[in-house]
Amino acid sequence: MKTIKIGLLGLGNIGTGSYKTLEMNRDEIEKSSGLDLRITKILEKDTERKRDITVSPEQFTQDPEEIFNDPDIQIVIELLGGIEPAATFMAEAMKHGKSVVTANKAAVAANYERLTNTAKENGVMFRYEASVGGGIPILNALTTVLKANKYEEVLGILNGTTNYILTQMTDYGLDYEDVLKVAQEKGFAEADPTADVEGIDCANKLSILMALTFGNYVPPTQIPTEGITGITKQNIKNAKANGCRIKLISSARMVNGKVEYAVKPMELPETHPLASVNNEFNAIFVKGNAVDELMFYGKGAGPLPTGSAVMGDVLEIAKVLAAHM
Amino acid sequence: MKTIKIGLLGLGNIGTGSYKTLEMNRDEIEKSSGLDLRITKILEKDTERKRDITVSPEQFTQDPEEIFNDPDIQIVIELLGGIEPAATFMAEAMKHGKSVVTANKAAVAANYERLTNTAKENGVMFRYEASVGGGIPILNALTTVLKANKYEEVLGILNGTTNYILTQMTDYGLDYEDVLKVAQEKGFAEADPTADVEGIDCANKLSILMALTFGNYVPPTQIPTEGITGITKQNIKNAKANGCRIKLISSARMVNGKVEYAVKPMELPETHPLASVNNEFNAIFVKGNAVDELMFYGKGAGPLPTGSAVMGDVLEIAKVLAAHM
Repeated sequence: MKTIKIGLLGLGNIGTGSYKTLEMNRDEIEKSSGLDLRITKILEKDTERKRDITVSPEQFTQDPEEIFNDPDIQIVIELLGGIEPAATFMAEAMKHGKSVVTANKAAVAANYERLTNTAKENGVMFRYEASVGGGIPILNALTTVLKANKYEEVLGILNGTTNYILTQMTDYGLDYEDVLKVAQEKGFAEADPTADVEGIDCANKLSILMALTFGNYVPPTQIPTEGITGITKQNIKNAKANGCRIKLISSARMVNGKVEYAVKPMELPETHPLASVNNEFNAIFVKGNAVDELMFYGKGAGPLPTGSAVMGDVLEIAKVLAAHM
Repeated sequence: MKTIKIGLLGLGNIGTGSYKTLEMNRDEIEKSSGLDLRITKILEKDTERKRDITVSPEQFTQDPEEIFNDPDIQIVIELLGGIEPAATFMAEAMKHGKSVVTANKAAVAANYERLTNTAKENGVMFRYEASVGGGIPILNALTTVLKANKYEEVLGILNGTTNYILTQMTDYGLDYEDVLKVAQEKGFAEADPTADVEGIDCANKLSILMALTFGNYVPPTQIPTEGITGITKQNIKNAKANGCRIKLISSARMVNGKVEYAVKPMELPETHPLASVNNEFNAIFVKGNAVDELMFYGKGAGPLPTGSAVMGDVLEIAKVLAAHM
């Protein structure tokens, strides 16, 4: 059996979920691919935290160079979060001939051209399925088997926190502030929820989706973005009276040869496939000129769903690497 | 630009849809792949029918051997329908070193081992995305980026005709026979609807799904199969009273290390993601031990949605072939 060695940057929640996905499905992965995937080095300061996975002290390092310069490591998984140093670390890994997998939408969206170009220049693979829609395998579909289409429209519910808040407001007639408080207590919303509720997280994901569907990269800061902080229970009641539900929609649409795009709350008719996507679930609706309407639905966050996407990318890269070993 | 030549077996509705998908998206395909895909030979008796595509008389042949023996043809698309001679033609094409793409669930399900083994023995690729869920890119997802999961459950609404009939019965309180008649008039159901309404078409698709998710191939004739002909409007009314909708569900589930499977009408709670999949739409619900719940939704039939899946497969194969040219 061929062995592929992997370096991991960051062993927080998502890092642990990815590690655990590999650990619990090792047999399955070996059986289907004939490959032994091994995370040999992990960049992480906190070596003591209880994580419910088997990591030996020798796997930890405090020096990213140890991973970049390890000639045995062929794939680097970046799960540090934040734009920097994540983006620079990814570029650095590529320059050292390593293929890169990440879940980091902020770093990819802000550095899309830099990272895709660096990957090309260094002849390595770069995958970021987990950066949009968590476990939903949307980017792979859009970039491979759906490529015989011209894309006409992409609409997404791309943020679980805001979808949870809007769903609770709709189902129980509650105010935004009250639901946010409960969501924070339950851990569905962060102490500082700005990136979620102001639509910034969605803009990052839409930026990536647009680059892949329309070949049109727009930095997230240039996407018109409106969050859900202005939505009142009266707005939701009015929408309901019209047979609609309010959802935070990230949209990109080809109109007369130009792409129109925005992140904003929208009233969707109850019959729209996205209208019944509730609570923490995400979904992406795609329209292609041959395939017509498609929807992909699943968990947009969480350590294991995200780990599924990360390890799926790793596996796809590993299969290509192994074919050349 | 590299050219990949393709032979097409059958220019009926799906063949025409696939041809048209390539024709209308040629620029897009060339731009994204750098490949010139050309259908150079077509096995088809009816050379006169109006099809709204550009085919020259020299492309037609009446002799499949002309395609199998053409050294320039690298991919054969089989869209004849029916088990034979389709399966034998596919095996024959593989033995002549051609990769094969098909939408033919009956032929694939009945000959799964023969065809996958013949492909392996001859070092060619074999793809059949369009055979399950039409345009929905489910097989590619299950066999690539989701492979870091252990699958726990697969549930599908895999037949548009029966889903249309059940939806109409549910929405308008109609009898089975009355809806069937209208569906036949509208072209949503065939003159002889047996394969659809008795669940045979679903059993073919479930057989393929099970082979790919659980590595457990069961011939469709050995799958317990019940159709919708026994469903009355009273059954549907009773289900509604329980907050449920009746759907024809193809299911496979891992229970204590064994796969349990069946095609049969089931009452799904209205909150289940599959419950709101209506009319001619198909959807596949998958549960994996890392990714948790996923659903893929789209058009399960029709010339262009099916053509999208066929040409998506062709494109994936062409990219691999081109990498070795």
